[in-house]
Amino acid sequence: MTRTRFSGVLVPVITPFNDDLSPNAGAFVSHCRWMLDQGVDGLAIFGTTSEANSLTVAERKMLLEALLENGLPAGKLMPGTGACSIMDAADLTAHAVSRGCGGVLMLPPFYYKAVDTDGLFASFSEVIERVADQRLHVYLYHIPPVAQVPIGLDLIERLVERYPDTVVGLKDSSGDWANTQAILDGFPGFATFAGSESFLLDTVRGGGAGCITASGNANPAGIRKVYSAWAEGSGKADDLQARISQIRNTLQGYPMIPALKAMTARFTGDDDWALTRPPLTALSDGQVASLMADLEAIGFDIATNGDCVTA
Amino acid sequence: MTRTRFSGVLVPVITPFNDDLSPNAGAFVSHCRWMLDQGVDGLAIFGTTSEANSLTVAERKMLLEALLENGLPAGKLMPGTGACSIMDAADLTAHAVSRGCGGVLMLPPFYYKAVDTDGLFASFSEVIERVADQRLHVYLYHIPPVAQVPIGLDLIERLVERYPDTVVGLKDSSGDWANTQAILDGFPGFATFAGSESFLLDTVRGGGAGCITASGNANPAGIRKVYSAWAEGSGKADDLQARISQIRNTLQGYPMIPALKAMTARFTGDDDWALTRPPLTALSDGQVASLMADLEAIGFDIATNGDCVTA
Repeated sequence: MTRTRFSGVLVPVITPFNDDLSPNAGAFVSHCRWMLDQGVDGLAIFGTTSEANSLTVAERKMLLEALLENGLPAGKLMPGTGACSIMDAADLTAHAVSRGCGGVLMLPPFYYKAVDTDGLFASFSEVIERVADQRLHVYLYHIPPVAQVPIGLDLIERLVERYPDTVVGLKDSSGDWANTQAILDGFPGFATFAGSESFLLDTVRGGGAGCITASGNANPAGIRKVYSAWAEGSGKADDLQARISQIRNTLQGYPMIPALKAMTARFTGDDDWALTRPPLTALSDGQVASLMADLEAIGFDIATNGDCVTA
Repeated sequence: MTRTRFSGVLVPVITPFNDDLSPNAGAFVSHCRWMLDQGVDGLAIFGTTSEANSLTVAERKMLLEALLENGLPAGKLMPGTGACSIMDAADLTAHAVSRGCGGVLMLPPFYYKAVDTDGLFASFSEVIERVADQRLHVYLYHIPPVAQVPIGLDLIERLVERYPDTVVGLKDSSGDWANTQAILDGFPGFATFAGSESFLLDTVRGGGAGCITASGNANPAGIRKVYSAWAEGSGKADDLQARISQIRNTLQGYPMIPALKAMTARFTGDDDWALTRPPLTALSDGQVASLMADLEAIGFDIATNGDCVTA
């Protein structure tokens, strides 16, 4: 059985909460549908941006079921299923595969630090063997600034050699282009995604698959345009890349997850979107005002979410 | 309702696995009972040494239930209940309190790094408020080398001020005596535990409560003797401290958790005790031989587990 590999622009979806901090499945479904309507190629639900590790296993499954019950296409979904416990990771991964998800994005177990490659290989291997489903496509999730447990080139090599039809790609959120370049050079054909749209053109020109980027929650169409321009060989790609990088740089002046939630609260008119689960904290009123002013200064119109397609 | 606060020597219990990596409840109960028989003052089940973050929520509950069903005293148990998700932490904490555990040892949520004190305060506060049980005693778990999310003096101060009858102590696994000293000085009456027996005498002499130490899995009686000697005002305390520090230093030449499991496998004759869950890896045969030789060289007899009381 052949499965399509992801490519293009994927978004790690922010997770909405009610004021008792329970997940708001309705708002989640609406936001996911809106982003697909804006043309993104997939939804990396339950990533870092999604506060996924602040959710229980049951909450993650419930939110995935809500998307499917509401008709969102499973093949466009790449849920995060990594966890500190290989048993939780196997459980979440088996659930995602059973529901037809196009792939999963898998963190390494991230509690113990300075673990060796043998231990990390065994972690991924145990999950893959326990799920034991040929439909499974694993995208490795390298995010050393947060997880503090890296996925090195040696580990990628061992996993790809052992599971060539299963371990098919990686998201590189190191922010270190030299590392992305090394993966692109070392693993041609591997679906390598940059963790920020700032590297989108560089990644696809280097043979990578695209990007999986938090700011796609606020600017999905603008980011997708860069990919389209590149795919069509348009001369506009570099100018469009400069524009999305400008927006990204503005966002990076703020804590990214609360900033995206504040923008979505403003865009949708639903103040609850600004809520985060502890340990994350929402932007202060002052930070929100400053962010909105910064966006306005670069011509990003929050009322229509910037460069987005409007009806 | 008044609850006793823990003091003395507590052990973060290693967790035994079967060869399919499921937890072995029978071996867990036996090991816990043996340590209490050796005189330790409490069992900090589900700590870092216990590979607790490699367990699911359900597995942790099952193991706690197994101890209680087998007659171990709930008041002597201090389960680790911290988690990345405040909902998991609240669930585990409520379960422990409902079963009469003497307290819980609580990690901060440890996925996001560089979170602020407001966010960490909100995390602990949400758990305490959701559990909403006056019997709850929280011991904060400061282990920055692993969690990478510290519990600073400012956070302790805010929590103790807000929850004086609930947040009653802390385990300091920073390995930084200056930090322990600052907590002892800043919070007299707080039940402060060193995270290593190397600091046991210094901690109790400074007004602290004792230690919660991994090596108690292998040398419980020897470590407890130091506490007894101090409590009785015996002149032998410093010599006994020097001895347990020598054993600790020997163990620290090896990855601590696999080393303790290898020693327990040798002591019990049950090879499965050496098993770890990924990402941790068992000691190699060469490492085991080297560890045993190092222990023999300092006169620690593995056949009787060193300085332990024998029947």
